[in-house]
Amino acid sequence: VPDADPRRAVAPIRWDGRRLRVLDQTRLPDAETWLELTGADDTAAAIRRLAVRGAPNIGIAAAYGLALEVTAQPGLGALERGAETLRAARPTAVNLAWAVDRVVAAGLAASPATLASTCRATAQQIQAEEDAAAAAIAGHGRELLDGARRVLTHCNAGALACGGAGTALAVALALPDVEVLACETRPLLQGARLTAWELDRLGVPFHVLADGAAAGLMRRGEVDAVVVGCDRVAANGDVANKVGTYAHALAARAAGIPFVVAGPTSTIDLATPAGDDIVIEERDGREVSERWPARNPAFDITPAGLVTALVTERGTASPVTPDAVAALAAP
Amino acid sequence: VPDADPRRAVAPIRWDGRRLRVLDQTRLPDAETWLELTGADDTAAAIRRLAVRGAPNIGIAAAYGLALEVTAQPGLGALERGAETLRAARPTAVNLAWAVDRVVAAGLAASPATLASTCRATAQQIQAEEDAAAAAIAGHGRELLDGARRVLTHCNAGALACGGAGTALAVALALPDVEVLACETRPLLQGARLTAWELDRLGVPFHVLADGAAAGLMRRGEVDAVVVGCDRVAANGDVANKVGTYAHALAARAAGIPFVVAGPTSTIDLATPAGDDIVIEERDGREVSERWPARNPAFDITPAGLVTALVTERGTASPVTPDAVAALAAP
Repeated sequence: VPDADPRRAVAPIRWDGRRLRVLDQTRLPDAETWLELTGADDTAAAIRRLAVRGAPNIGIAAAYGLALEVTAQPGLGALERGAETLRAARPTAVNLAWAVDRVVAAGLAASPATLASTCRATAQQIQAEEDAAAAAIAGHGRELLDGARRVLTHCNAGALACGGAGTALAVALALPDVEVLACETRPLLQGARLTAWELDRLGVPFHVLADGAAAGLMRRGEVDAVVVGCDRVAANGDVANKVGTYAHALAARAAGIPFVVAGPTSTIDLATPAGDDIVIEERDGREVSERWPARNPAFDITPAGLVTALVTERGTASPVTPDAVAALAAP
Repeated sequence: VPDADPRRAVAPIRWDGRRLRVLDQTRLPDAETWLELTGADDTAAAIRRLAVRGAPNIGIAAAYGLALEVTAQPGLGALERGAETLRAARPTAVNLAWAVDRVVAAGLAASPATLASTCRATAQQIQAEEDAAAAAIAGHGRELLDGARRVLTHCNAGALACGGAGTALAVALALPDVEVLACETRPLLQGARLTAWELDRLGVPFHVLADGAAAGLMRRGEVDAVVVGCDRVAANGDVANKVGTYAHALAARAAGIPFVVAGPTSTIDLATPAGDDIVIEERDGREVSERWPARNPAFDITPAGLVTALVTERGTASPVTPDAVAALAAP
């Protein structure tokens, strides 16, 4: 796959017009294993077990998975059944339902003869749009954070999660002389496994740190800005993102540094009024501890009032008000 | 060792009048291994590698280690050299220097014939005082948090860290029908390894959770109070405690729930004006990641303004002002 963007560590979702291959993120950084996905069931399974992850990439993979489903089994029945399977794979990210619904709508509008090719073309268009969105987000974020050099991020909102070079990580990578502080992101260590792997591949200076160490470093003046991705943005600007994000937002506010959320407008969900209306996926406690009973919410909510700016491909909302969010998400 | 306190999970520092045995906390919860310590060098090494940990217990073990040093090698030279070795074992906890200085002062005041026995008696007295302090702290904390049931704690401030049944954990255990949320406490997992082990042994209901999940649970109204221990309290009431504590304090303030610090007055250091004057130990980055460069501050500072109450064996400071702290620490 040719890749013109020098800031993209890897292109993890690869479509050659016929076959869909994805990088198995559960094996990183120890092994680079590629999976071939062939339809709705195996794509949904890959999403559930986090082989494919990151809100934008979940949407892209689901769109291709559904297109392959109707390629193998042409007809509206397969389209509807496949869509249902894929929508149910994970509850929190809105891009998943958004991408699936878009493929379904395109399929329903096509003739039986062009159903499968229309779905494939729609999936490709979604991917191309997410790539373009990521590049635009990086540009807007760079303007916003001009002069910031020590950037803290959480989880992985890089090429492994999003189109192009990513959202939050692409913003950091767009800053001159950046040094990244990558929170390890317990329990699944997406920061220490995935963000660190991308930064190492790109040769960008970084340190990993325990999630709990972030607030103290901000208080000591060792961080210029925090930039994170988002899994869903409610109509009032509240942000659902990987568990641990909210504490970083509180610490950034206390330290007087910007807390920036970066994501494509496909993550904005105007149908959800506020963060408290977002379903927070509670995952298996064994991801936290094999030995003891454990709580394991996968996400948390950061209230809009703590978000300095929401950066999307269409521009930046700052402050993050319901009107500003609605303007970004308008069709 | 007879143990009258039903809320004490274990007595980890055992002195039979002649021999000192300590539970090796680096092996928990997988194995209960006891180490015999014989003097200043091996006690300092056990403290450095965290086989003995928790500010009060570090002080108790150091006192016994120094007493054994002058028992084996009677004389003021051994007393001074042993004291120097032990004081240097870890920089952040103030109890260590406090306990060592107290044994030295008692030894200097004794006759050559009673030097060793005086040092041993002083170590026993320090341990007895820490046991009594822990019981008093539990009583004061119970009054303060009357009605709280869902208590979140960080790291381990239980019997494994302190005299008696502990400080912060003893406060939680004193509350009727308590359910404990034990933050796992990366990078060394003292919460998931040690606090969970104590609670399991005691049959108290608990869940472990990723440190980053705490703030979101507080925001969702699932926590009644946060109670933590402390490694050092500055004269202005700022608190040094295990890294990750400060973020919990910010989240508790945002959620409108009490954030309580529990510790014996031996952790108050009037010679240190404020939290920013406390040396924060930066430990080996390999504790965080074997693969990547890592930051690893072992502690952070919670400003006094975020602490609802400081609970000591002599009573409670609330609000935590310089005058209230000075009154608690007065000789």
